[in-house]
Amino acid sequence: MPAPRRKRRRPDVAVLRVGHRPGRDPRLTTHLALAARALGASRLFLHPPDPELADRIAAVARRWGGTFGVLGVSSWKPVLSEYRGGVVHLTMYGEALTSVLPRIRRAPRLLVVVGGAKVPAALFEDADYNLAIGSQPHSEVAALAVFLHRLLGDTPPSRFRGGEQRIIPQRRGKRVLAVRGRNPG
Amino acid sequence: MPAPRRKRRRPDVAVLRVGHRPGRDPRLTTHLALAARALGASRLFLHPPDPELADRIAAVARRWGGTFGVLGVSSWKPVLSEYRGGVVHLTMYGEALTSVLPRIRRAPRLLVVVGGAKVPAALFEDADYNLAIGSQPHSEVAALAVFLHRLLGDTPPSRFRGGEQRIIPQRRGKRVLAVRGRNPG
Repeated sequence: MPAPRRKRRRPDVAVLRVGHRPGRDPRLTTHLALAARALGASRLFLHPPDPELADRIAAVARRWGGTFGVLGVSSWKPVLSEYRGGVVHLTMYGEALTSVLPRIRRAPRLLVVVGGAKVPAALFEDADYNLAIGSQPHSEVAALAVFLHRLLGDTPPSRFRGGEQRIIPQRRGKRVLAVRGRNPG
Repeated sequence: MPAPRRKRRRPDVAVLRVGHRPGRDPRLTTHLALAARALGASRLFLHPPDPELADRIAAVARRWGGTFGVLGVSSWKPVLSEYRGGVVHLTMYGEALTSVLPRIRRAPRLLVVVGGAKVPAALFEDADYNLAIGSQPHSEVAALAVFLHRLLGDTPPSRFRGGEQRIIPQRRGKRVLAVRGRNPG
């Protein structure tokens, strides 16, 4: 008799941004970090470190809830080699999302690596999967967003417990609720 | 007798970026334009105009194929009022994607509006739908990418006919094919 179907556990997904340029990329990497958080990743490893950016994201997490954080790393290679889980490198040169997705769906832990303008060639070798969200040039923010959404689906509000405020979805206009004490999610 | 099932035609999706700041946002709006193109939108209306950015995107389209282009507009209101189709405003304050999607799936033409840091209040009123990709702060690039991907699915290579080169997806490394003469897509 087959085992009863169980609800699949959400995998833990961490993101590693390689080749951030603190002087030049602050807004782009901020968007990347916020998208990672909003779409269900648990944390962002940032190479090289950018304490100001990490502080800004920490302030967002305090206000809007959840445990997402940015961890600066001075070398990206150890993050990959020490990671206990599958490593997915997002690149326009890789295999199509639809062909990779069935192979990684059951992984309990995934590290998603996104590069900037210049990506070290070693990344293609060190990753378990090189995955393309379409074989056209676009944006690492867009690629990460589509990947997380396809892998994790909608992010449940319970990911964002403990914030100071939350949005009540509206047809028109804005409605933001101040959360007093504990946010039930 | 019910009519036989026909393959649904892909809707035509245009994007309108409101409140671009040419001095400050060039990279972010470039990412937005490239994501719009790669994920199947037909064009980007850019407010206010930014000829340099439009030229950069035109160069990408020449090299990588397709007919996507950036059209500068000095006022965004007429774009909405003259648009013959549904208007979807992406905002973290809006209704959830999953509740809006069934209502817009059959639209033949859609205009997707994305704001920057400050969004004019009138947009909430003038749009047919205010749609949130999660009720958390993140990125207009990420929101647009998830929306286009959910609405249009994978972008067929035929969208990118006529380029000078194309990528052959690989497990490792990069493979780019120079296209001589007409690209069959």
